[in-house]
Amino acid sequence: MIEDKNNRTELNELGEFGLIEYLTKNIELKHTSTIKGVGDDAAIIGEGEKVRVVTTDMLLEGVHFDLSYVPLKHLGYKAVVCNLSDVYAMNAVAEQITVSIALSNRFSLEAVEELYAGIYLACEKYNVDLVGGDTTSSLSGLVISITAIGTGKKETISYRSGAKNNDLICVTGDLGAAYLGLQILEREKKVFMDNPNIQPDLGGHDYLLERQLKPEARKDVINMLAGMKIVPTSMIDISDGLSSELIHLCRNSEVGCNVYDEKLPMDTSVIQTARDFNLDPSVCALNGGEDYELLFTVDMSEHEKLKNNPDITIIGHITEAEGGMNIITRDGRQHELTAQGWNALLKKDD
Amino acid sequence: MIEDKNNRTELNELGEFGLIEYLTKNIELKHTSTIKGVGDDAAIIGEGEKVRVVTTDMLLEGVHFDLSYVPLKHLGYKAVVCNLSDVYAMNAVAEQITVSIALSNRFSLEAVEELYAGIYLACEKYNVDLVGGDTTSSLSGLVISITAIGTGKKETISYRSGAKNNDLICVTGDLGAAYLGLQILEREKKVFMDNPNIQPDLGGHDYLLERQLKPEARKDVINMLAGMKIVPTSMIDISDGLSSELIHLCRNSEVGCNVYDEKLPMDTSVIQTARDFNLDPSVCALNGGEDYELLFTVDMSEHEKLKNNPDITIIGHITEAEGGMNIITRDGRQHELTAQGWNALLKKDD
Repeated sequence: MIEDKNNRTELNELGEFGLIEYLTKNIELKHTSTIKGVGDDAAIIGEGEKVRVVTTDMLLEGVHFDLSYVPLKHLGYKAVVCNLSDVYAMNAVAEQITVSIALSNRFSLEAVEELYAGIYLACEKYNVDLVGGDTTSSLSGLVISITAIGTGKKETISYRSGAKNNDLICVTGDLGAAYLGLQILEREKKVFMDNPNIQPDLGGHDYLLERQLKPEARKDVINMLAGMKIVPTSMIDISDGLSSELIHLCRNSEVGCNVYDEKLPMDTSVIQTARDFNLDPSVCALNGGEDYELLFTVDMSEHEKLKNNPDITIIGHITEAEGGMNIITRDGRQHELTAQGWNALLKKDD
Repeated sequence: MIEDKNNRTELNELGEFGLIEYLTKNIELKHTSTIKGVGDDAAIIGEGEKVRVVTTDMLLEGVHFDLSYVPLKHLGYKAVVCNLSDVYAMNAVAEQITVSIALSNRFSLEAVEELYAGIYLACEKYNVDLVGGDTTSSLSGLVISITAIGTGKKETISYRSGAKNNDLICVTGDLGAAYLGLQILEREKKVFMDNPNIQPDLGGHDYLLERQLKPEARKDVINMLAGMKIVPTSMIDISDGLSSELIHLCRNSEVGCNVYDEKLPMDTSVIQTARDFNLDPSVCALNGGEDYELLFTVDMSEHEKLKNNPDITIIGHITEAEGGMNIITRDGRQHELTAQGWNALLKKDD
């Protein structure tokens, strides 16, 4: 069926976001209960004051995870956390998940129990109910598809599209660590593959490895913002890297931004390890993915409330769209932000 | 990680339903908004009179579909329909879906467009909005994961657990055709593989092929029942075969049943083609899957309203649990229903 086509366009000519845009550009929503469809961290549905938030992700072995160094329990935990992060990114609270898995006969019941132990641990920690799913066989690797459902108030949902000129740009936690954790795991895997007698050297990298293998979603920040009566004007979670998410947010809001290299929050271990790998730490923070922190904007009048918050860093401000999307380096030079994603993480001396 | 285990239990020792039961038996629901979790066609969530229905399915190339004879447009359509069927089986109406796909570079943009043309056609026909999803790469085949969301009134949702003694057992449409459609496709594939010069002979099997390749979900029946003010005491959709679904329904309701072989609704093409394949037509109706018809029970007082309905057949009645789950053959003999699924479909002369 597939080979019949004479006009063949390769998918990589569009990229993931281009493909989604192409496939969904003609959607006409039919239901008044569909408040927000494709194009944000989650869809919003419902009729009244209280709305439901729905988001879904699919993870495939060999593409999203490598079972040679990812323990199944951690994988289950992380798979849930990635989805919950998308719910929190709408300024909503997750309540339910469904979990579908496809398994080959390579997996034993004990292996599946490990995976579910991680899934249930995340459900416990984030207070969500596992309410359904599908279990099926796979001819090759493990596939995990999770849908998360949350609730929020219609008027306090934060979309990608609400940022306005002069808003402050904030990020939670610190950036770049999950990416460097992955670099360490990949390096040690390579050493092991080259010589199975050499044991992996993972010592001293606890923080980076934990950020990669067992990330957390920022439910605490959503609760904290509610406590401070702050409703972000826009929000997105940082799964593909800060640059990529900033570009999504600015394009959806039809604004520009200036962010400051010196403000990017990084753990000292990120700075040190990036240098060990001959990488620029700022590039890791900007383009390394899987941090699952939140990127959001607030009205500048909220500055006092946030300026000394240990969990939140103000990294810049929103500008008019004409100003473009820029990163200002420590020496005052301005560079256009590019969503290179992980491709950008070439070694400096390459 | 997986190979470390000394105690290895193979997944096929439990089977799919055993595995789900094992993995979910200790769930304690935390949210009052979770009205029904794992264990029915869909989960039910919400707070008020109007509730949300959530169901999800994952389909994998090589396990659930074979692209050598399934057109991508049909596949997209069917993938949506399977999920919607689970929503209708709760006596609810579907309003939204999310669609996640994983693709290898074997697929061109034109192929993906075909798949989505089928997805959008089903959205149009069943009046649902595509509101989100995920698009990712796959190292091997195509994976499709769909979540459907619907709405219903809390007091008219039909669970698997509500059937009671003397209720009438009803099925919609006819059974066995999708299974026989698959047999024809598999036969012609084999002929073609053995000798590529022989063209597939699919003539005269339009109904069976359509039931396999482009099934429909019974939204019409849900609307019809509402119009007749009938609320089924229990309901389930027939995806794995009537026997298997009847057993689910009876076990969940803690009842037994007597169903009559002579009442099983079958198209004449099913009877004819089953014989051509040396199969028992009743076995095809009982154990052939993918019909996506509805199996439901109603109070016996509804008999008058349903007895002459062309879309609904009364095939038996519910008994006390002690009576067991039985099929009564044309010669009056009683056999225990077994959920053999497709394994039961051995040729009669084997």
